[in-house]
Amino acid sequence: MPSFRIASLASSGLARSFTTTARRLEIRDVSELPNRIVPNYKNSPTSSLLSLEWPSPPRNVLIVPKLYAPLVISSAVEFAKHIHSEYPNLHLIFEQRIASTIHDSLPFPIYSSDPTHFPTKIDLVATLGGDGTILRAASLFSLHASVPPILSFSMGTLGFLGEWKFEEYKRAWREVYMSGSRVGVSDLQGPHTQAATNGWNDGGNDAVGTREGWATIRGKNMGTTRASKILLRHRLKVGVYDENGANINAHLMPTSTAALTQPLHPVPPEIKELSNTGEPVVPDLHAINELVIHRGPNPHLAIVDVYVGNRFLTEAVADGILISTPTGSTAYSLSAGGTIIHPLTKTMLLTPICARTLSFRHLCLPLNKKVVLKVSKKNRGRELEVSIDGKRRAGVTIGMEIRVTGEVVGQVGDDDTWTGGVPCVIRSSGQGDEGDDDDGWVGGLNERLKFNYPVG
Amino acid sequence: MPSFRIASLASSGLARSFTTTARRLEIRDVSELPNRIVPNYKNSPTSSLLSLEWPSPPRNVLIVPKLYAPLVISSAVEFAKHIHSEYPNLHLIFEQRIASTIHDSLPFPIYSSDPTHFPTKIDLVATLGGDGTILRAASLFSLHASVPPILSFSMGTLGFLGEWKFEEYKRAWREVYMSGSRVGVSDLQGPHTQAATNGWNDGGNDAVGTREGWATIRGKNMGTTRASKILLRHRLKVGVYDENGANINAHLMPTSTAALTQPLHPVPPEIKELSNTGEPVVPDLHAINELVIHRGPNPHLAIVDVYVGNRFLTEAVADGILISTPTGSTAYSLSAGGTIIHPLTKTMLLTPICARTLSFRHLCLPLNKKVVLKVSKKNRGRELEVSIDGKRRAGVTIGMEIRVTGEVVGQVGDDDTWTGGVPCVIRSSGQGDEGDDDDGWVGGLNERLKFNYPVG
Amino acid sequence: MPSFRIASLASSGLARSFTTTARRLEIRDVSELPNRIVPNYKNSPTSSLLSLEWPSPPRNVLIVPKLYAPLVISSAVEFAKHIHSEYPNLHLIFEQRIASTIHDSLPFPIYSSDPTHFPTKIDLVATLGGDGTILRAASLFSLHASVPPILSFSMGTLGFLGEWKFEEYKRAWREVYMSGSRVGVSDLQGPHTQAATNGWNDGGNDAVGTREGWATIRGKNMGTTRASKILLRHRLKVGVYDENGANINAHLMPTSTAALTQPLHPVPPEIKELSNTGEPVVPDLHAINELVIHRGPNPHLAIVDVYVGNRFLTEAVADGILISTPTGSTAYSLSAGGTIIHPLTKTMLLTPICARTLSFRHLCLPLNKKVVLKVSKKNRGRELEVSIDGKRRAGVTIGMEIRVTGEVVGQVGDDDTWTGGVPCVIRSSGQGDEGDDDDGWVGGLNERLKFNYPVG
Amino acid sequence: MPSFRIASLASSGLARSFTTTARRLEIRDVSELPNRIVPNYKNSPTSSLLSLEWPSPPRNVLIVPKLYAPLVISSAVEFAKHIHSEYPNLHLIFEQRIASTIHDSLPFPIYSSDPTHFPTKIDLVATLGGDGTILRAASLFSLHASVPPILSFSMGTLGFLGEWKFEEYKRAWREVYMSGSRVGVSDLQGPHTQAATNGWNDGGNDAVGTREGWATIRGKNMGTTRASKILLRHRLKVGVYDENGANINAHLMPTSTAALTQPLHPVPPEIKELSNTGEPVVPDLHAINELVIHRGPNPHLAIVDVYVGNRFLTEAVADGILISTPTGSTAYSLSAGGTIIHPLTKTMLLTPICARTLSFRHLCLPLNKKVVLKVSKKNRGRELEVSIDGKRRAGVTIGMEIRVTGEVVGQVGDDDTWTGGVPCVIRSSGQGDEGDDDDGWVGGLNERLKFNYPVG
Ligand SMILES: NC(=O)C1=CN([C@@H]2O[C@H](COP(=O)(O)OP(=O)(O)OC[C@H]3O[C@@H](n4cnc5c(N)ncnc54)[C@H](O)[C@@H]3O)[C@@H](O)[C@H]2O)C=CC1
Ligand SMILES: NC(=O)C1=CN([C@@H]2O[C@H](COP(=O)(O)OP(=O)(O)OC[C@H]3O[C@@H](n4cnc5c(N)ncnc54)[C@H](O)[C@@H]3O)[C@@H](O)[C@H]2O)C=CC1
Ligand SMILES: NC(=O)C1=CN([C@@H]2O[C@H](COP(=O)(O)OP(=O)(O)OC[C@H]3O[C@@H](n4cnc5c(N)ncnc54)[C@H](O)[C@@H]3O)[C@@H](O)[C@H]2O)C=CC1
Ligand SMILES: NC(=O)C1=CN([C@@H]2O[C@H](COP(=O)(O)OP(=O)(O)OC[C@H]3O[C@@H](n4cnc5c(N)ncnc54)[C@H](O)[C@@H]3O)[C@@H](O)[C@H]2O)C=CC1
Repeated sequence: MPSFRIASLASSGLARSFTTTARRLEIRDVSELPNRIVPNYKNSPTSSLLSLEWPSPPRNVLIVPKLYAPLVISSAVEFAKHIHSEYPNLHLIFEQRIASTIHDSLPFPIYSSDPTHFPTKIDLVATLGGDGTILRAASLFSLHASVPPILSFSMGTLGFLGEWKFEEYKRAWREVYMSGSRVGVSDLQGPHTQAATNGWNDGGNDAVGTREGWATIRGKNMGTTRASKILLRHRLKVGVYDENGANINAHLMPTSTAALTQPLHPVPPEIKELSNTGEPVVPDLHAINELVIHRGPNPHLAIVDVYVGNRFLTEAVADGILISTPTGSTAYSLSAGGTIIHPLTKTMLLTPICARTLSFRHLCLPLNKKVVLKVSKKNRGRELEVSIDGKRRAGVTIGMEIRVTGEVVGQVGDDDTWTGGVPCVIRSSGQGDEGDDDDGWVGGLNERLKFNYPVG
Repeated sequence: MPSFRIASLASSGLARSFTTTARRLEIRDVSELPNRIVPNYKNSPTSSLLSLEWPSPPRNVLIVPKLYAPLVISSAVEFAKHIHSEYPNLHLIFEQRIASTIHDSLPFPIYSSDPTHFPTKIDLVATLGGDGTILRAASLFSLHASVPPILSFSMGTLGFLGEWKFEEYKRAWREVYMSGSRVGVSDLQGPHTQAATNGWNDGGNDAVGTREGWATIRGKNMGTTRASKILLRHRLKVGVYDENGANINAHLMPTSTAALTQPLHPVPPEIKELSNTGEPVVPDLHAINELVIHRGPNPHLAIVDVYVGNRFLTEAVADGILISTPTGSTAYSLSAGGTIIHPLTKTMLLTPICARTLSFRHLCLPLNKKVVLKVSKKNRGRELEVSIDGKRRAGVTIGMEIRVTGEVVGQVGDDDTWTGGVPCVIRSSGQGDEGDDDDGWVGGLNERLKFNYPVG
Repeated sequence: MPSFRIASLASSGLARSFTTTARRLEIRDVSELPNRIVPNYKNSPTSSLLSLEWPSPPRNVLIVPKLYAPLVISSAVEFAKHIHSEYPNLHLIFEQRIASTIHDSLPFPIYSSDPTHFPTKIDLVATLGGDGTILRAASLFSLHASVPPILSFSMGTLGFLGEWKFEEYKRAWREVYMSGSRVGVSDLQGPHTQAATNGWNDGGNDAVGTREGWATIRGKNMGTTRASKILLRHRLKVGVYDENGANINAHLMPTSTAALTQPLHPVPPEIKELSNTGEPVVPDLHAINELVIHRGPNPHLAIVDVYVGNRFLTEAVADGILISTPTGSTAYSLSAGGTIIHPLTKTMLLTPICARTLSFRHLCLPLNKKVVLKVSKKNRGRELEVSIDGKRRAGVTIGMEIRVTGEVVGQVGDDDTWTGGVPCVIRSSGQGDEGDDDDGWVGGLNERLKFNYPVG
Repeated sequence: MPSFRIASLASSGLARSFTTTARRLEIRDVSELPNRIVPNYKNSPTSSLLSLEWPSPPRNVLIVPKLYAPLVISSAVEFAKHIHSEYPNLHLIFEQRIASTIHDSLPFPIYSSDPTHFPTKIDLVATLGGDGTILRAASLFSLHASVPPILSFSMGTLGFLGEWKFEEYKRAWREVYMSGSRVGVSDLQGPHTQAATNGWNDGGNDAVGTREGWATIRGKNMGTTRASKILLRHRLKVGVYDENGANINAHLMPTSTAALTQPLHPVPPEIKELSNTGEPVVPDLHAINELVIHRGPNPHLAIVDVYVGNRFLTEAVADGILISTPTGSTAYSLSAGGTIIHPLTKTMLLTPICARTLSFRHLCLPLNKKVVLKVSKKNRGRELEVSIDGKRRAGVTIGMEIRVTGEVVGQVGDDDTWTGGVPCVIRSSGQGDEGDDDDGWVGGLNERLKFNYPVG
């Protein structure tokens, strides 16, 4: 394999790394990779799911295994080897902590870096683990409007968000890799031992990625209209403001536990915009499950003023308040008594956590409403804790506020690029059933949440 | 006043009624009225509410007072007299039961008929009463996709849906009547002592809608862009099917208690479409609050199989199940533990009523999902009760099913006519505040539902 | 067997029936039986359960199988035959409907009558069926303070109240029959093929209860201290009063569905006491699960004024209100959101059914509090429905009220007879484990209610 | 007044303090005071409340004002001055922090010390503040089985536990001071301008409790049978055990925030008993509201194994678990969704805090059940937090457990002394209404908790 690796490097303009030590060879820097390929998502008349359509084959794949779980790391190695041998032109990327654990087990170079570079480079993410791993993967893109598609494998115990069983990884991978390619794939379930021989035509942004890329994956005829189904999960945009109304997102703690002790990775220049006043716009944080404000270790009740659409709604006296996406409705919000919401519903859910009245019912708001949570002057504790998707991000004190609204999702700009949401690859039945509109939600309620589990 | 009445009748082409008895004069038939004027609803960039825009002045107004409430009837008389004297070309319509009670108190002819004719004739509805009265008014249009705007006055105790206090009726009426007219109104708050002197072009079906109609209402300059705000409330479409899968909506009981003992008013010919198979399409029933299936007087638990999007979700063993609109989320669903939903959220809510497990949580679904409730073979009771908006409509037995989905709302067809939803006129502050986006929901939660009412 | 039967009849002084037809022979009248033997219940220092102690062997056994369930009837026949052959001096009693179905299958006479006679005659009840069957059995004693012990077998699907699997019936029966006899039983699990040969002193009313009765049951050594464990389930006393404050219990419908169309069985003279004013005291109705007041088929909300300890608590606007025993806390109250209460807790639970506020939380009161539910003048419907343990008993109208309090339980009077509660025989492990204090409640929560069933 | 003070000191055998500085004079040590007088509590046939009966007049009064609230401190000064001038032989005790703030404002000596001495010296407690102040007062006796009666004044905002308005303090004080004295009091409502002139027999440890003590309080005839009503609030006994099963209560943090940074006050020798093995018995901690185990600042869910009566009930995966008294049912448990329990119900309530299943319903158990909460091996966080009545007491780690059961309440021992519970003086109406059984609970639900607050 080394010879191939050299060729690959040369052709992709990364040859300069080649002269470095073996060590450097094995973990290369993500910044050397070609830029991201952004897929299209097509609406279907028969389904509320979207169809994934790659303009050219994906090249840069981030693999996110569960942390501290040796068996999952082994599976990640197995998965990486399979991809490397069957889809040789792909670059495999890992978070730094994982990369340094794993590189010895892999006979080919892998890529890593500070997560700052991921949003501009990653075409596709594969997670191996539970719901927490998917949340961690999504959090790597929490400052960005465009998240790459996520293919998630659940390992052992089932989670609620995980879609594919790890045993299905070969089929799952091929399906998402080929999605929208219009290249017939005949033996989806069979072995894929023969490497590609032909190049392929692919215009795209700057993507070299020709159609031949797919064509060369011989024997992989999927039927020309076959495409992976995407569930675009809504996110919430979150801004934390100090007593003077200044956004302090940039000072918050990083989301990824992979780098728990680091400061928030600096906002990469390309996403720094200027506001009307000439100041750089601070990026929003995005939550895929929820934003929580909680008393934390504070023994006293938290007191938070809640505004909806600029109107004062209520003074919440409670352990905390959470604002959840539909996705997060089966997470903390469910435990706090909230309603369960189908992920395609355009709503956000305000759920109190142990509120000290008899009459604080959970609320559903249109996703485009603006909600503000303001730390009341009446608080007796020092500070309240702000968490996003289960990770503590800030301690907020009297006068500070958190502004939350739904992220805009859809095609924007002149080039109609998709923006917003977390595109999750839905498990297909593997039967080639075109009209299948199963988003897996009903199954998840029954099998995982034990919804309305019969008595007696 | 008699002379005026005669003139008015003559000029409006209704002279043939003139030869009838005084009695006949006073209650005329709705079928004699010109056809309905369908308004436009404009989106606003600064508000999630719509703006009401009449193509020409409304002419036919249905007034719906609360039943069995003499004080409300008196207010209805006062309201009718005001409109008749200030806006003389309008026709006032009442349900039959009300009309026969009220006509003696009114010195001008009023209109009435079987409710079958209302959907093609009524331009605007004014209700006087509580939430139940609004539900009753909406139910008069429950077989129709296009409901006229509803201006609702609450009398005495506040309801949750009612918008205006009765004391404000002069301002409220003028505002909605003039809405979108582009005719300046100068003294919105002042007295309106001078009656209109000119007639206005009342062009029947295809009303040319001359500006003059409004211009004659002297001294009523509202500022040219002033328009009533409309909250378009979502409805659910409901079909009841027998064991053979045949729709039996046409055999269900009428919604309106005003005619409780009559059979369902026959579907008027103009809304009878033909399906692909040449059969007439049975119209859907529409719910503004909810559809309920309940054990009723049956001592045993109801057993209902629930399907979501063609998938079996669960077997509900319960007092009942309800599927609610966002509007209905503060009605029965709230009592049954459901979440409170902002009326602009595109969702429907499935709430169990006393389900016999620990694990039946309420669910929110996208408004376009299809839900089926099927009476299980396991039921021991004779039949279950089906109600829409609090009115019993049918008893369903084993094998029968109820299909529910959200009504499509928006502009459809070649002429972009608005369809779907119940357009409710929102109370404005009367301050001419253009950018005001208050849908009154936050206020209603606090003042009426005592949301999160403080303890201590 | 006929010869035996004759002998038995002769020796028991019932010979006068002998001359009647074969038909009469097979279903005899309960009034002919010797009077009831009331057991003692001993407290134990190591257990919160009581120990059953018969002063002399039980003689009259009421067998209550599930209705309309042929397989259960077959099991009842099997059970009856076993008892008749192994414990020949016992009299088996059935409700009339069951007796007429079953007597052909039994080669020995059985007893039946109007349920009025049961309370003075029945020593022990065995139920075969689910929770509903136990409720029905208990309802036969709903006018009486002293209920015989109930041995309940669940058939097929497990209920929550049922204790023993039907397969265990031989052991279960022997255990309860011998309980407290101080006669050693050696082969509890073994076959009991040898019938008793000696008669035993069956002394009518004040049965001397000689030890010989048990001693003749050869080979049934249980260890001298072995006794069946009894869970004494609390009941509620219920009185329904008309607008004038007169108790109308005597006019309510009967509880037992076995006699659904009959009027309430007349109160037997022996329980008719005189009040201070010389009027006969109307007996209370007793609920083992709950008392419910509900809107029933009425579409409008029920309005009920609730008093606790003579103080006005609240006006409930709801589908209904229920007052539950701890036993009933896992029945309707659970569905309505109520808390789950261990059956030995001295409390009653007031749970609203779909109350129309955000702030009606369920309440637990000491069992000796007095609660009054009064039908408010504000009700719009004709009448509300009153049910006890799932059976409709009355329709109540404006001004009527229901008074509820916990039944006094314990030893009363000069002779220290036990009174109050429903004594349920708890399933023992069969291992002779003396100190076992398992009331089965924790097991029931997990196995039947799927309490805290794990997610994922 | 100074002369009086000296006399009083001399006669009470405390003269040795007299020679110290003025400063020492003003804050004396509690250990110098005569021992506590333990009252009797009489059952009444007409009330579920108890009657307070002092064997001799109370002498040592602990005054507990709210912390950090200057206005409440002023009220405490006013209250102390009133008692000193009208009831001159009483000793007023304050916590150290309060004593040093307040002594300058009081022209007579006060007492203070480490709270260790309170349980053997304090006859009666008066609190000024909210519920938190009552909890703090009770916590001073949390290691002891016998708590003095607590007379609680609410200041400003009403709490749920507070009974008397501060404005009523003269009447309230007289009523509780005279309770059970059999001395007639004639002018309960009138002004009390005449001070007592005679001293009274203050007989040290075993006060003979002469009637003269009360008789000297001229003009205070209450009617001979008048007595303060006592609501005896149940407490929970709590033991924290390490992985080896050793009780570590003695190492936990102190309850009182008045001494937040001190270690737990050492167990006074007189309550140290010896167990069977000769080891000193570690005293239980007592909770008046609840015991909470919570994830605290830990982002991950807590995992706790719950045992009831030695049987494994469930693995709770949640923010936390709480076990509440009936009193605590309106505190944290209410916020977590628990049922509201009348304080005289003999039950404890197990309520999950945001449990991660759909099926964890709150549970009520008999007060004498034993519940064990064991920190599961599956926990990922470092430690869980244990709080009693809202004060953090310990961090517990994997393998540690908390054992909870209800405190035994009633008359024990040869001398029938009352033990257990927190005796709270209930507000009387002041109308001398003998048979009044109002425990104030229904009023509190409505006025403070806004129970079932009407909608509309
Ligand atoms: N009391 C509670 O229920 C709490 C819940 N959480 C939830 O945990 C999430 C973080 O997850 P982890 O880092 O894995 O923490 P974790 O290890 O504490 O596990 C949280 C649990 O929630 C599940 N989960 C996460 N997202 C879910 C979703 N969208 N739908 C259904 N189940 C979901 C996970 O599978 C796991 O069982 C937070 O976003 C928050 O929603 C966090 C704190 C307390
Ligand atoms: N247990 C319960 O809560 C029950 C509720 N209902 C509700 O009553 C409705 C029918 O109303 P009525 O004919 O007036 O019956 P009704 O006279 O029984 O009154 C129902 C109550 O619900 C209120 N209400 C109705 N719609 C509402 C809404 N959208 N939001 C907030 N409050 C609302 C009314 O103001 C009234 O207080 C049904 O659509 C159903 O939602 C019907 C039966 C039982
Ligand atoms: N929505 C609901 O949950 C309703 C519940 N019920 C309950 O049904 C009871 C009458 O039972 P059936 O005649 O069998 O009627 P049913 O045939 O309608 O069944 C009621 C269900 O409740 C169960 N059940 C009864 N008592 C129970 C208890 N103490 N603990 C746990 N589960 C229990 C039964 O096993 C059965 O599954 C009533 O006392 C009432 O509690 C009655 C009406 C509605
Ligand atoms: N989310 C919640 O509801 C939380 C409640 N708490 C409760 O606070 C208590 C400690 O009280 P503070 O030190 O004053 O803390 P705090 O200052 O945080 O206030 C707790 C609130 O609970 C009220 N409260 C306390 N005991 C009550 C009772 N038995 N019934 C009704 N209301 C009651 C108080 O009046 C106050 O409004 C704890 O025992 C716990 O029950 C503590 C933490 C969170």
